[in-house]
Amino acid sequence: MTEKTLGVLGGVGPLATVYFADLIVKMTPASRDQDHIRTIVSNNPKIPDRTDYILDRTKPDPLPAMVADAKMLASLGCDLIAIPCNTAHFFYDEIQKNVDVRVMNIIEETLRFARRTVPQAQKVGILATSGTLQSNVYPHVAERFGIECIYPDERDAATLMRIIYDEVKAGKPADEKAFFSIVERMKAAGCDAVILGCTELSAIYYELHIRRPDILDSMTALAAACVTEIKGSVLL
Amino acid sequence: MTEKTLGVLGGVGPLATVYFADLIVKMTPASRDQDHIRTIVSNNPKIPDRTDYILDRTKPDPLPAMVADAKMLASLGCDLIAIPCNTAHFFYDEIQKNVDVRVMNIIEETLRFARRTVPQAQKVGILATSGTLQSNVYPHVAERFGIECIYPDERDAATLMRIIYDEVKAGKPADEKAFFSIVERMKAAGCDAVILGCTELSAIYYELHIRRPDILDSMTALAAACVTEIKGSVLL
Repeated sequence: MTEKTLGVLGGVGPLATVYFADLIVKMTPASRDQDHIRTIVSNNPKIPDRTDYILDRTKPDPLPAMVADAKMLASLGCDLIAIPCNTAHFFYDEIQKNVDVRVMNIIEETLRFARRTVPQAQKVGILATSGTLQSNVYPHVAERFGIECIYPDERDAATLMRIIYDEVKAGKPADEKAFFSIVERMKAAGCDAVILGCTELSAIYYELHIRRPDILDSMTALAAACVTEIKGSVLL
Repeated sequence: MTEKTLGVLGGVGPLATVYFADLIVKMTPASRDQDHIRTIVSNNPKIPDRTDYILDRTKPDPLPAMVADAKMLASLGCDLIAIPCNTAHFFYDEIQKNVDVRVMNIIEETLRFARRTVPQAQKVGILATSGTLQSNVYPHVAERFGIECIYPDERDAATLMRIIYDEVKAGKPADEKAFFSIVERMKAAGCDAVILGCTELSAIYYELHIRRPDILDSMTALAAACVTEIKGSVLL
């Protein structure tokens, strides 16, 4: 049987996409090139901004470009599609509806990962874009996992937008101090763990080699689910 | 005018491919997602080993899979194709012949990069797989740039194969000491600089953040040429 091919609907953002592709390689049990997963990555940064549209529906709609890319990946024989962008999951149902292959859901995989790695977790902080927070994708799914989502306050949410847009997406170093103090405030507010619910925050997690059981990375959760689905096991 | 789309014929190897895609993002002058280059990456590690075939023509021929991937990228609208694998350039003419879009040549771009960054260079050491060395792709092109290629001796060539196949491609840490002592021996043998003529060696260069004017990385040279071609400038 031919091994499944993974499609990556990426570009949202471009840096997170390459880090996701890198995670797929590094999490795959392999001792030679041919053991690795065949992956087709559409790194399409021309897709209009997701948060812009969610907050203001007069802005360009990113859905048509995302559906076109999903269809392209499916037509190339991808058996599974991953979208390494949390905010894009506001459009998840519409994308899945347009292709016959399975589209992995980063929100579900992250909450499943949270439930497994921090079994006692009741309250989890969500660090994400305003688009992801406002569209309530996390609380909506978290209920099924018995997890309550805590949002950062308005000031911290604004700081996260600055880190995501003015720093990571702009190719500048992230304000680590501000990032970690938000994590600490979420913990002080009673969160058992925080979820990095934006793949630009995953990029920080990745670059700083953060390994803390109370910081759960959505990109890692999605990559782990994809590798497990295709190879039956994963290097974590 | 729509900006050009870059196609990456990758998987040879998979880790080098994601680092190449990462270089494309990091070398692009950009302050937001939409400034980045649309890139389609075929990370196809199922392509048969290039060196195996070059050294023993009874082994599986990687050319048909590479031509199929090049055609796929061209059919998806890629305007430019890059192959982040030096050994694959033994098959360069055959791949280019099969598609109407321009296939960048890593060997040419690396030697052009060498000529520009080390203008006085006369002798350059080539660190590469046995397939790349034996097929003489570097000396063949270097003549046009007035550069003489020096090869590692048999023992060092064997060590390079171990580093490339048993370490980098196997997901294990590279033997840095052995790597740098080969570089030093090439310099002692009269080389003005050495070329990392294998993208698995580029992976080491990348992971260790090596920045030495006398170590010229083929993957960086290829990425710089692609970004310059599409954006008109590049961050080096």
